Amino acid sequence: MNNDRIYNFNPGPAALPLNVLEEIKASFLDFAGTGMSVTEISHRSKWFDDIVNDAINRTRRLLNLSKDFHVLFLQGGASLQFSMIPMNFLSDGRSADYINTGTWSTKAIKEAEILKKSVRVIASSEDKSFSYIPKDIRTSPDAVYVHFTSNNTIKGTQWSEFPETKGVPLIADMSSDFMSKPFDPEPFGLIYAGAQKNIGPAGVCLVILRDDLLKQVPTHLPSMLKYTTFASTNSMYNTPPCFAVYTVQLVLKWLDETIGGLKNMEAINRTKAGRLYDILDTSDFYRGTAEIGSRSMMNITFRLPSEDLELKFVQEALENNIGGLKGHRSVGGCRASIYNAVTLEAVEVLTDFMKTFEKKYG
Amino acid sequence: MNNDRIYNFNPGPAALPLNVLEEIKASFLDFAGTGMSVTEISHRSKWFDDIVNDAINRTRRLLNLSKDFHVLFLQGGASLQFSMIPMNFLSDGRSADYINTGTWSTKAIKEAEILKKSVRVIASSEDKSFSYIPKDIRTSPDAVYVHFTSNNTIKGTQWSEFPETKGVPLIADMSSDFMSKPFDPEPFGLIYAGAQKNIGPAGVCLVILRDDLLKQVPTHLPSMLKYTTFASTNSMYNTPPCFAVYTVQLVLKWLDETIGGLKNMEAINRTKAGRLYDILDTSDFYRGTAEIGSRSMMNITFRLPSEDLELKFVQEALENNIGGLKGHRSVGGCRASIYNAVTLEAVEVLTDFMKTFEKKYG
Repeated sequence: MNNDRIYNFNPGPAALPLNVLEEIKASFLDFAGTGMSVTEISHRSKWFDDIVNDAINRTRRLLNLSKDFHVLFLQGGASLQFSMIPMNFLSDGRSADYINTGTWSTKAIKEAEILKKSVRVIASSEDKSFSYIPKDIRTSPDAVYVHFTSNNTIKGTQWSEFPETKGVPLIADMSSDFMSKPFDPEPFGLIYAGAQKNIGPAGVCLVILRDDLLKQVPTHLPSMLKYTTFASTNSMYNTPPCFAVYTVQLVLKWLDETIGGLKNMEAINRTKAGRLYDILDTSDFYRGTAEIGSRSMMNITFRLPSEDLELKFVQEALENNIGGLKGHRSVGGCRASIYNAVTLEAVEVLTDFMKTFEKKYG
Repeated sequence: MNNDRIYNFNPGPAALPLNVLEEIKASFLDFAGTGMSVTEISHRSKWFDDIVNDAINRTRRLLNLSKDFHVLFLQGGASLQFSMIPMNFLSDGRSADYINTGTWSTKAIKEAEILKKSVRVIASSEDKSFSYIPKDIRTSPDAVYVHFTSNNTIKGTQWSEFPETKGVPLIADMSSDFMSKPFDPEPFGLIYAGAQKNIGPAGVCLVILRDDLLKQVPTHLPSMLKYTTFASTNSMYNTPPCFAVYTVQLVLKWLDETIGGLKNMEAINRTKAGRLYDILDTSDFYRGTAEIGSRSMMNITFRLPSEDLELKFVQEALENNIGGLKGHRSVGGCRASIYNAVTLEAVEVLTDFMKTFEKKYG
């Protein structure tokens, strides 16, 4: 590793692949021989068309998407999707199912309710402080969609198998585990992911939308809040967040060509998560907070014997060039976010540090 | 100039100050000694707080804003503001005045109408293909606000003095001339500017909002579509477009420290525009399209004797390292966009080229 760089376990914005950062840096004053920075080229140029189309094509290939799906780039993060989804798909008299597995699901439900849309919360893990993923879920046959959050960054839980809906389209906030493993896209009507965890920097949200849902979008919505605007213009109705889209394109290229696709990525992610959970499971010092069957491969949340030790842990880690281990401000504790771009080497440095720290203070 | 770089007259995304690009490049793998790229640091970190606060403070100082104003960073560009403004300020039974000076004003009006808001178009230059800025405007005393576009990129017109409203708050889309000259902010209730012309890259929209208008925002709007959400969280309700905000901060620093503020910037911009209009006014070959009293200092639009010559002009310019001179696809012709970061040197290279081209083909 570059000596100036730290091992970055930030929850998002998060680590990006070093060779992606190096490519951006190398061409920052002269992108692709244009004589301009990528931040200075027109979004109506062939150069930017190539960036967007390559990002779309790699998304299609990596996820094995059929022609039924549109790949779109929006602004406003997952938080704006919380509103756009009910605005675009929940017409009067219709209702949607929501599964509540934590802070982000709760916000998605709240935004649908602000719009006075009819929402049924069909399952929740709030009874145990969102430490698990609900099982045996019964979805409503008349629901327009079933919404869930595939990975929960704050509590460190993740769905291993998606809910069975008997044909009702799934809609998922995949911000924090998008492109971390292969999955079957067919049951999904819409998938959205803020880029700043697994596929890029903050400032762009990738949306995958099935054509039959797109056809349901009403015409009277504000232009920037209806999916048809983005689908009919290849996400260029107005100036898109060019630099963020460009970085996403490079990350997807890295995932495709350097890593070799999502199957390989999953194997690496499983190894990384395994190393950390092994420590939690074989130690009396570190204690995982998520139920074992619901554990996240992306965000490993844990506690130490005291808050004092947790503070010391985060501080001493940083002194050892290991950053980003503080838990979310709403829950405290510690968290290692090990998204795609976090290397196995980084995880090994962290596990070594954890062992040393336990010997010293355990 | 760096030999690999071209003279960039793009209409937006557009040229950025070279020393800003060089600073981004130099620290791209290790921002401020953090050991992370600026794209990898947390938006909840002190480092990012410093970026946002410095950008806000410089905006305040450069524009001489009183404490009555909030400075916010939003996503979705000016296009989302077209909807958010009526959504936040036009309650039932109230009406707003709009002045139509071109494509962007027309879109702002359309978005208010989509929301079924009451809009009065009190003046328009559509009768002469938007080639001038209307005069002697009478605003409605009962209007909630008066909306106008301060500079019109496509037709190359610009307001030199803003409409007199007798106390009704002005709202302006200043995307394409924001920070290009000093102005009195007091009559304004809200100013918005997509960053990708004068102050940064695409992906962030700066909004300046007066406190009395903020207090009128209703509570029942979607969180990401109400200004109060951004004002109460220092624009960090959710993950902001960090890289775009960072670049804006550096551009404002350049404007503040290297240029020396808006008065100096205006002098430079006047000289640049003067050089180009001189050519248009002393030539029978080049013909300006905007009426003389309504000309833009930012976008100089002109025609050549034939479309063939216009095509040749754009092509030969590019062969001479001068880019971005094609007019907007909706109107054709030629356009030199000379935003803040376009140097006088670049304009002189262009005027020299224009003289040579005229000698060759005139």
